[in-house]
Amino acid sequence: MKIREIAEILKGTVVGDGDVAVERIAAIDEAGPGELTFVANLQYRAKLATTRAAAILVHPGTECPGKNLIVVKDPYAALGKLLALLYPIETAPPGISPRAFLEEGAEISPEATIYPGVTVCRGAKVMRGAVLYPGVFVGCDAMIGENSILHPNVCVYRKCLIGKGVILHAGVVIGSDGFGYANPGVENLKIPQVGIVQIDDDVEIGANSTIDRATLGKTWIKRGAKIDNLVQIAHNVVIGEGSIIVSQVGISGSTRLGKGVVIGGQAGLTGHLAIGDHVQIGAQAGVIDDVPPGSIVSGSPHLPHREWLRVVATLTKLPDMRHTLSSLAKRVEKLEEEWKTRY
Amino acid sequence: MKIREIAEILKGTVVGDGDVAVERIAAIDEAGPGELTFVANLQYRAKLATTRAAAILVHPGTECPGKNLIVVKDPYAALGKLLALLYPIETAPPGISPRAFLEEGAEISPEATIYPGVTVCRGAKVMRGAVLYPGVFVGCDAMIGENSILHPNVCVYRKCLIGKGVILHAGVVIGSDGFGYANPGVENLKIPQVGIVQIDDDVEIGANSTIDRATLGKTWIKRGAKIDNLVQIAHNVVIGEGSIIVSQVGISGSTRLGKGVVIGGQAGLTGHLAIGDHVQIGAQAGVIDDVPPGSIVSGSPHLPHREWLRVVATLTKLPDMRHTLSSLAKRVEKLEEEWKTRY
Amino acid sequence: MKIREIAEILKGTVVGDGDVAVERIAAIDEAGPGELTFVANLQYRAKLATTRAAAILVHPGTECPGKNLIVVKDPYAALGKLLALLYPIETAPPGISPRAFLEEGAEISPEATIYPGVTVCRGAKVMRGAVLYPGVFVGCDAMIGENSILHPNVCVYRKCLIGKGVILHAGVVIGSDGFGYANPGVENLKIPQVGIVQIDDDVEIGANSTIDRATLGKTWIKRGAKIDNLVQIAHNVVIGEGSIIVSQVGISGSTRLGKGVVIGGQAGLTGHLAIGDHVQIGAQAGVIDDVPPGSIVSGSPHLPHREWLRVVATLTKLPDMRHTLSSLAKRVEKLEEEWKTRY
Repeated sequence: MKIREIAEILKGTVVGDGDVAVERIAAIDEAGPGELTFVANLQYRAKLATTRAAAILVHPGTECPGKNLIVVKDPYAALGKLLALLYPIETAPPGISPRAFLEEGAEISPEATIYPGVTVCRGAKVMRGAVLYPGVFVGCDAMIGENSILHPNVCVYRKCLIGKGVILHAGVVIGSDGFGYANPGVENLKIPQVGIVQIDDDVEIGANSTIDRATLGKTWIKRGAKIDNLVQIAHNVVIGEGSIIVSQVGISGSTRLGKGVVIGGQAGLTGHLAIGDHVQIGAQAGVIDDVPPGSIVSGSPHLPHREWLRVVATLTKLPDMRHTLSSLAKRVEKLEEEWKTRY
Repeated sequence: MKIREIAEILKGTVVGDGDVAVERIAAIDEAGPGELTFVANLQYRAKLATTRAAAILVHPGTECPGKNLIVVKDPYAALGKLLALLYPIETAPPGISPRAFLEEGAEISPEATIYPGVTVCRGAKVMRGAVLYPGVFVGCDAMIGENSILHPNVCVYRKCLIGKGVILHAGVVIGSDGFGYANPGVENLKIPQVGIVQIDDDVEIGANSTIDRATLGKTWIKRGAKIDNLVQIAHNVVIGEGSIIVSQVGISGSTRLGKGVVIGGQAGLTGHLAIGDHVQIGAQAGVIDDVPPGSIVSGSPHLPHREWLRVVATLTKLPDMRHTLSSLAKRVEKLEEEWKTRY
Repeated sequence: MKIREIAEILKGTVVGDGDVAVERIAAIDEAGPGELTFVANLQYRAKLATTRAAAILVHPGTECPGKNLIVVKDPYAALGKLLALLYPIETAPPGISPRAFLEEGAEISPEATIYPGVTVCRGAKVMRGAVLYPGVFVGCDAMIGENSILHPNVCVYRKCLIGKGVILHAGVVIGSDGFGYANPGVENLKIPQVGIVQIDDDVEIGANSTIDRATLGKTWIKRGAKIDNLVQIAHNVVIGEGSIIVSQVGISGSTRLGKGVVIGGQAGLTGHLAIGDHVQIGAQAGVIDDVPPGSIVSGSPHLPHREWLRVVATLTKLPDMRHTLSSLAKRVEKLEEEWKTRY
């Protein structure tokens, strides 16, 4: 494929020789002749000069004489488009394995792909185009929407609803009991969790993440939200449309996120919070209170990001400050004594 | 069901019309006619006035003219009782699927429920009333006690002992090797982990949590302890009776918890610690030393909770303090010079 | 076995009666007659005097009159050797279960052990001596090397390469999609992840840990690295030879670790970092920048360990410092006024 053609597909422009052909895509360090690479992160811009790649996807304004550039508005998005084009996902042919375990009363589209070792319980529905890999469990009365992919050993408990085009990576658990006990640490009386989990269209959830069912009502992951690996979403949480939750985040019960919220890795949110639209939460933050729309917060307990930066910058000065303070106290004491002595 | 009858079951009293009937239970925001709701968290008390619920479970002393209240000592516990009554868990009928994988020498009660795709290895025992969902693995010589429920894809390694009435949610791993290597980072010589995990009666463990087997002896989760999702319990840890471990907590090797310990989400404990009875550990805390019974600790490294609150409150003042300190230093220097000049 | 013989195997020396026989190994608190124990952690040295063990593995220089000691250079390593000798792992006999799910075009050595309920997809290879427990999934064109053990419900996605002598504990996920979206929080355009995961020989990975496949190229866990439970390794990360990653650590995309790096539990590393050989990172640290070889860092954001210790020691003084500062400010103000009044 000539890079002139690629530029056309990506609505970009070529700087250099548009007739150069590329066959594969590779990272900037590894790319060689016949390979296309990209610079999405400006940190890697310095590698432009030394890469052996035949052509490079770059941001507008990037210059590198002697190299063949394809200039596009968003090189990372362009890379995504190109990868989807060049490396199409191989879909397994539809069909229901005779070695799957299907309870009577399960409704499975003949256009779904059901691998051996899948379990679908009574009352559950699996729609056309859905792919269920080995070890997937779909509980009673659950629903798996069109074209959704459930990777090996995903477990969807009873009554939970999975939308269309959802991707659940291996080991994801949807609808396990929320963690609710009355008189905790003393009686630990279990509160039955009789609600569900609803996952809307185009959500993707990473390997071994867990989404608990609601006590009453539903835990709700809204359209287009993307959740990384090993994330914990507790009962009755609501994740707004298009939100991004990075790995190992934990969100406690009944907290509600607005649209387009972005949460960095290992952050934790306490329960019953309202997090506004487009809030950004730093990695390892501990959020203990409502956060208004559009805010950026960091730290544990959380602070506005700029304030947190100032605190962090001061922290390393703390031992010096303590020393200065103690010497200052002595000097003031001396001054006071001299003053007292004289007057 | 009339709310008068519900109040009787819960040993509560009706304020309002005891003849009102309710059919379902719902959260305070969603509840409508024919539905009962509850206010367990005082944060939600303001919603009492606006809920459309037919009746509300409330704490003693709660008033809301015009609403039908059922006043009980502990509304959350009362909710639990009521949910268990109205939404009984549907138990699968006992029986052993011919599509389960049973090694010779596995002993399984005919009154247990063994789904297709379950594996039980030689020497293992599964007692009456136990339910093993698809994908469950029970290793050689392991034991699953009466009425315990192992959700899909739970793995119990060889020789581990699971008591009665235990609930293990999907993806839980019991008895994987503890993390022990001699000369770590250099030789990494594996220390074989030849101990077991023992889980006593009435324990519940959340989805994808992992409990490592002991190097020697046992890792021990005592009666009635409740562990949330994605929790890590290392080799030779002991969790005392009735303890509550919230999601994503990590407890390092050989640490021993007393009774009724409560640990908040994402907290971490280093190894070889003694944590006393009824200790409370805050979310995201880092506990690096023994904690005496009844203490409340927070922060990383941990501090007594009140002390930690004071530190945290001061943290945000740190940039101001630094500024004040520096201006004060100049002022003292000026005073000292003026003094010196004059005398 | 006489302890004289054990000492010979371990290249240690006996202090006491070398003719005493031991049959089992037990922890120092539980050991009794006929049992050998050890003191590897100096914290437990005080228990030497009270243990009922027949003999004790100890460090050089340890004294305990009246006890039978086996003095070895590294008691923990010696324990490892002895456990491997006395408690050999029972290997299942080789053979391929007719109840495994093998796609046409899967190549499986007849000397591998394939349990029922295992899936091996087309183009995948499983070498001699490998053991695949029930529920294991090996995707298309993946490779499982000689003598590797995949515990129940491990999932290896397509094309990923597992070396020789690798141990993957239950629920490990290798090769799930890296978390990459263009225009995150707004468009969330998925970047297809077309790279692989390569795991070299003698790596061990703990239960329910997740290793994402690379966007392009490979995520690479090098020879002899040991990874604990519930760890997250993102796309394109490189883990150097012999590194030790404790439970619940998260490493973000494209970060590269050198050899023999040791990372404490729950630490997090941001993306695109270079971590030098033999770096040590404290538990719960947040590493946000490159770390030079041989450094020790702690805290979040991370600091050199000694500096972090000083900061932490000062933190608890912060409320006092604030008080001192405020009283000092008043005293300086008073001095300034007195000075001004007089001159």
